[in-house]
Amino acid sequence: MKKKEINVALIGYKFMGRAHGNAYISAPKFFSLPVQPVLHTIVGRDQKGVAAVANQWGWKSFETDWRRVLENEEIDLVDVGTPNSSHAEISIAAAEVGKAIACEKPLAMNVAEAKAMVKAVKKNRVHNYVWFNYRRAPAISLARELIDEGRLGKIYHLRAVYLQDWIMDPNFPLVWRLQKKIAGSGAHGDLNSHLIDLARFLLRTEFDEVCGMAKTFIKERPIEIPGRGFATVKTARKKGKVDVDDAVLFLARFGNGAIGTFEATRFAKGRRNGNQIEINGSKGTLVFNLERMNELQFFDDTLPKQEQGFRRILVTEPVHPYIHGYWPPGHIIGYEHTFISMVVDIMNHLAGRTKEFHADFEDGLRCQEVLDAVLLSCKERRWVRIKEVA
Amino acid sequence: MKKKEINVALIGYKFMGRAHGNAYISAPKFFSLPVQPVLHTIVGRDQKGVAAVANQWGWKSFETDWRRVLENEEIDLVDVGTPNSSHAEISIAAAEVGKAIACEKPLAMNVAEAKAMVKAVKKNRVHNYVWFNYRRAPAISLARELIDEGRLGKIYHLRAVYLQDWIMDPNFPLVWRLQKKIAGSGAHGDLNSHLIDLARFLLRTEFDEVCGMAKTFIKERPIEIPGRGFATVKTARKKGKVDVDDAVLFLARFGNGAIGTFEATRFAKGRRNGNQIEINGSKGTLVFNLERMNELQFFDDTLPKQEQGFRRILVTEPVHPYIHGYWPPGHIIGYEHTFISMVVDIMNHLAGRTKEFHADFEDGLRCQEVLDAVLLSCKERRWVRIKEVA
Amino acid sequence: MKKKEINVALIGYKFMGRAHGNAYISAPKFFSLPVQPVLHTIVGRDQKGVAAVANQWGWKSFETDWRRVLENEEIDLVDVGTPNSSHAEISIAAAEVGKAIACEKPLAMNVAEAKAMVKAVKKNRVHNYVWFNYRRAPAISLARELIDEGRLGKIYHLRAVYLQDWIMDPNFPLVWRLQKKIAGSGAHGDLNSHLIDLARFLLRTEFDEVCGMAKTFIKERPIEIPGRGFATVKTARKKGKVDVDDAVLFLARFGNGAIGTFEATRFAKGRRNGNQIEINGSKGTLVFNLERMNELQFFDDTLPKQEQGFRRILVTEPVHPYIHGYWPPGHIIGYEHTFISMVVDIMNHLAGRTKEFHADFEDGLRCQEVLDAVLLSCKERRWVRIKEVA
Amino acid sequence: MKKKEINVALIGYKFMGRAHGNAYISAPKFFSLPVQPVLHTIVGRDQKGVAAVANQWGWKSFETDWRRVLENEEIDLVDVGTPNSSHAEISIAAAEVGKAIACEKPLAMNVAEAKAMVKAVKKNRVHNYVWFNYRRAPAISLARELIDEGRLGKIYHLRAVYLQDWIMDPNFPLVWRLQKKIAGSGAHGDLNSHLIDLARFLLRTEFDEVCGMAKTFIKERPIEIPGRGFATVKTARKKGKVDVDDAVLFLARFGNGAIGTFEATRFAKGRRNGNQIEINGSKGTLVFNLERMNELQFFDDTLPKQEQGFRRILVTEPVHPYIHGYWPPGHIIGYEHTFISMVVDIMNHLAGRTKEFHADFEDGLRCQEVLDAVLLSCKERRWVRIKEVA
Repeated sequence: MKKKEINVALIGYKFMGRAHGNAYISAPKFFSLPVQPVLHTIVGRDQKGVAAVANQWGWKSFETDWRRVLENEEIDLVDVGTPNSSHAEISIAAAEVGKAIACEKPLAMNVAEAKAMVKAVKKNRVHNYVWFNYRRAPAISLARELIDEGRLGKIYHLRAVYLQDWIMDPNFPLVWRLQKKIAGSGAHGDLNSHLIDLARFLLRTEFDEVCGMAKTFIKERPIEIPGRGFATVKTARKKGKVDVDDAVLFLARFGNGAIGTFEATRFAKGRRNGNQIEINGSKGTLVFNLERMNELQFFDDTLPKQEQGFRRILVTEPVHPYIHGYWPPGHIIGYEHTFISMVVDIMNHLAGRTKEFHADFEDGLRCQEVLDAVLLSCKERRWVRIKEVA
Repeated sequence: MKKKEINVALIGYKFMGRAHGNAYISAPKFFSLPVQPVLHTIVGRDQKGVAAVANQWGWKSFETDWRRVLENEEIDLVDVGTPNSSHAEISIAAAEVGKAIACEKPLAMNVAEAKAMVKAVKKNRVHNYVWFNYRRAPAISLARELIDEGRLGKIYHLRAVYLQDWIMDPNFPLVWRLQKKIAGSGAHGDLNSHLIDLARFLLRTEFDEVCGMAKTFIKERPIEIPGRGFATVKTARKKGKVDVDDAVLFLARFGNGAIGTFEATRFAKGRRNGNQIEINGSKGTLVFNLERMNELQFFDDTLPKQEQGFRRILVTEPVHPYIHGYWPPGHIIGYEHTFISMVVDIMNHLAGRTKEFHADFEDGLRCQEVLDAVLLSCKERRWVRIKEVA
Repeated sequence: MKKKEINVALIGYKFMGRAHGNAYISAPKFFSLPVQPVLHTIVGRDQKGVAAVANQWGWKSFETDWRRVLENEEIDLVDVGTPNSSHAEISIAAAEVGKAIACEKPLAMNVAEAKAMVKAVKKNRVHNYVWFNYRRAPAISLARELIDEGRLGKIYHLRAVYLQDWIMDPNFPLVWRLQKKIAGSGAHGDLNSHLIDLARFLLRTEFDEVCGMAKTFIKERPIEIPGRGFATVKTARKKGKVDVDDAVLFLARFGNGAIGTFEATRFAKGRRNGNQIEINGSKGTLVFNLERMNELQFFDDTLPKQEQGFRRILVTEPVHPYIHGYWPPGHIIGYEHTFISMVVDIMNHLAGRTKEFHADFEDGLRCQEVLDAVLLSCKERRWVRIKEVA
Repeated sequence: MKKKEINVALIGYKFMGRAHGNAYISAPKFFSLPVQPVLHTIVGRDQKGVAAVANQWGWKSFETDWRRVLENEEIDLVDVGTPNSSHAEISIAAAEVGKAIACEKPLAMNVAEAKAMVKAVKKNRVHNYVWFNYRRAPAISLARELIDEGRLGKIYHLRAVYLQDWIMDPNFPLVWRLQKKIAGSGAHGDLNSHLIDLARFLLRTEFDEVCGMAKTFIKERPIEIPGRGFATVKTARKKGKVDVDDAVLFLARFGNGAIGTFEATRFAKGRRNGNQIEINGSKGTLVFNLERMNELQFFDDTLPKQEQGFRRILVTEPVHPYIHGYWPPGHIIGYEHTFISMVVDIMNHLAGRTKEFHADFEDGLRCQEVLDAVLLSCKERRWVRIKEVA
């Protein structure tokens, strides 16, 4: 008996296009799924570029205008992998025509957009997902299980940093991620969005208030000259203003009484993808570092004092979240598996095998509220309660 | 223009079947290849089992008798992923009909078989590959580059252990890997083969002589009862003799004057896949641990004394071996990528884009010689020169 | 020829009494000093207690009133190792009688006290030292050398946490460190003082403005009943209010354009003495962790991309700061050696062999200004410029 | 009441002289001892050198001939910290005059000497101690406690390496440690002696048989010219033959059925003092590394599978061995504290407060038997049973 097919249209074909496309291919191979994802159509504005990706990754067709896939009745799931500025428009349009939607993070450019998106998916009762992929790193899923079981006791502290260093060269060009009109913000929306989401996911509490600061270390960068690409140190004088942050740091109070620090930066030399989180509770501590994503450190205060210590759990056992679909113990998985596991969950949800799904657009909105509150706090140099911007 | 297709027949469909199958699917997506691998036929003795895998992983057809694929003119590459006892028979037969061959490690049950295999591929001038997949962990490839550049200076020491713990429960059953007639040896052929191969690969030298010891800690295990599966602690009295080693340790002298220690064991509690290698030279040291396979530690004695230290290189940069095909810096890859990268190299070699390939059947034979010499040494309790068994 | 003796009077005989006393004994043994520190008098209010310590550690005499040692003309150096509330009174009195002073950190209860102390030592031209002992951890000294040499380039970020967990049990009693009138503040003065001092020491810049938050997780604790000691979970109902912080977190802007986060807490389960600092600059990164105080991690961006990584420098070489006096490479030192090395520097300074000394009372005042600015910020929920409290 | 004094005579005043001298000073300060060690006499052949050390470290007197201290009735404990070749002569003479003896490791040049030493201390019924100081690293003591409690279950494997790199420069001179007539052997007696002793101490079993190999990488080195010091690369042509090993590796079988590998080398670049030990049992694993001597890693297989991992125990709690005498949790100790703790145990034993002491001369003899068996094995290229040399 052939499985029901889920025809996917993926808008965007670059970095996220690869990550998502690979996930649709791999998920039904590593896992037994109730429905079969089909790489139906990939969309990109550059015809040559998108055609090449379609060919290499096995998409059945491609388009240069995303509106075409919304018109196509065959499409079941619209995957929004574009820069942030078009998330709302595409998602709302997709909702209006009844498509399920998987949207990249951050959900929107601001709370207003995010609210409109939530409204649209609710009104049209369409399935909606946000690609907060790190929720499905097995170590993160395990961390949540341990917290849910009360292994940390009462939570006191969370400290989260997301450290990168890929734009530290002053001659690194003014790519879309450094332009406010396309990206919304800099490291903040890109990286703090992950940290905020993981904090909500792991602690099962909402942010109460925040106080932050933003910094742009390099204020001008080479801009693209049509037909000649980005200026480089040698060829070009032409520079444009960087109007997003390079780093945003903030303090937070949570609804459950815990307190936290957050930092997103692209100026931490040597930290390539340093998403690091530590949570301290009355009974224990958990530590995660994305650069060693197969590991979770756990300090358990209920063990006898003389043998307490930070336990490096290699999260590659069949009993660990998602691992049964992959490899034997000690055979590590990588970055891409967070996407594969998310596709597994999406397909199970679309098929009705599971009732709940996280993260959805509501989660995306909650995250957006915190992002906006932090930016307001940075601007007005004061503590901002989340409900001020909600 | 459509690319030339390479039709693959994969013999074996369990653990290695998954690892190889996934690699044929992923390689042409992550990398631009000159030829297109096609998942043509998968072979397994259990029709129901192999059919299910063929369906899930997208093989065009399946067979229950490997001889059928040798008869099939469409097949270009025969991938031997069966237990060790059938490597020689299948590979030699495939060579006789002119197929390219990719054989799992260890190449053979003993030197005699390995020699016959080398002879067959040479006589028939067929491409031949051995799945020593860890050669293509980017950190290992980088280690070899650094050694080739002379960064370690004169090599003095290599110490290599491959530590696992999956059979420590005395009720773990007598699977094929614990039966001499199928596996040839225990941890020795399975794990020391990797270490021996990596030593040869990294040091570019041959073993001169070895002195070893073997140990079987658990001497009897539950055996399979037809139709009822393996005996468990509760159901069954029936036990069979374990006639392979649980651990083999040996000392070695290399042709270049370096000395080394090797240890393969399945009785190192907590070490899930602990393939650990350290190499000391006059100018530096390298350290690798498969459980953190994205990292390579490098001590460089040419730096000023006050700032010398073990440098943890996160081997995820575009300049690192194979990484340009995968993800951005800091986004780690996993176990399966060692197979994907090997398929990339196989396809480039089959297409003539590259002239050299490692590891081939000659490498497999060299490794087998060392394996046999160690077993002879264990038996006769003395140093054995490799040339005694070659 | 006998060396000039420096007669030391140590006020306080418990934890710091041990640390300081040991340092005076060990410094002239490990190092060749121009003058000889003599353990002249130790002072404590409990006669029995101080007598026992004097006997065990070899002090020539003891007193129960610190004023007596100020009257004693033999005393050259007054070491103030008492709780914070008496630092100012003792230090000022000692200055007035012309004694050199080594005062524990934080220097004072507030800026006003600290200013008076600075004024007193200046007026009386007495040598003055503050026991910011971690400046002399060899790894910290090395870090400063590397920063001074420009190895980090322009500094962008500093993130510093000092994590402990020794008061997390709600039945842990209301010791002096948890009483505002004696300690001034909680984790803030005790731990953030170290971080603030190290930031100033390492970056050679001053704080510009700060924004913080304070939290007291356990608001009541068992109090001492005269003659019966502290109440325990079983014996006593009597509880007192905790009027200091358990944790203080803050954001900071530095004069040189760098930004930072700071966190001091006694509620980070499993972190026994987790003084952790990371500094990111345009050319590199440094990481320090007091629990592994013999190590410094250094990321050097000037190395070729393919071999960059975090280098774990074992700071135990003769070329490293202070190490020539201790043991051969790889033979680690411990917590107490930070005090021994400080005594070495004090003796060299008292003898005129060196002209400069850090940290002095001016440094203590600078640190106090930041401490006070943070507390004001916590209270008024706003950014506070250091000059507001200076 | 004044405590009974134990007058110590220390033979040897260089590296070990410092380590031992410091221990006699510090032990009665950190710990409450039943007797008081007194630094009575230090002995060295170079009058100027020994006088300077005596003065700096506070010895009451010095001698240039060790025989003089044996004649001195005041001396209670003779501490033999000389090169290996004189251990036997001095110790036996000390025993004959009824002195307690603390002898550096390895106990002797060979089994014959060691036997004579054991005979002498037994005949004269004198207390006898061997400075296997690493037994008293708190992490090692804790490891033994855990093993004694059965926490590792049945022991399968021990792998121990002691890696150093201080003589890798070919121009490093021919010091006494590289001369057979003084040192007996090279890395073997110096470093493998520690590993052999720790294996016996931790596993509480004896070695059964061994098979080893020795290697001297640099066969000639600059020699000392009377009055001009060691030749250096520039000044001197004069070289002498290195007649000891640079590295000795061996396999071992223990009486309890466990197997092990051992390696001592001075040619492991970057490993300054890399005494690393791993022990695998049916229920768990322990890992120790001297360069991080305050830590012990413990894998406990009795925990639920999903939370198993290597636990980094920071061995600085008051409940940990010896720590109550030093500092609070997280405040690490260093190399010298292994000697201090040994003096504590010696004094308690001399005072009769404890009945047992390890390691004594019998332990030293057992270690010597293994050392000799390994050297015989290296020479004859075969397995050697310990009883062949005992």
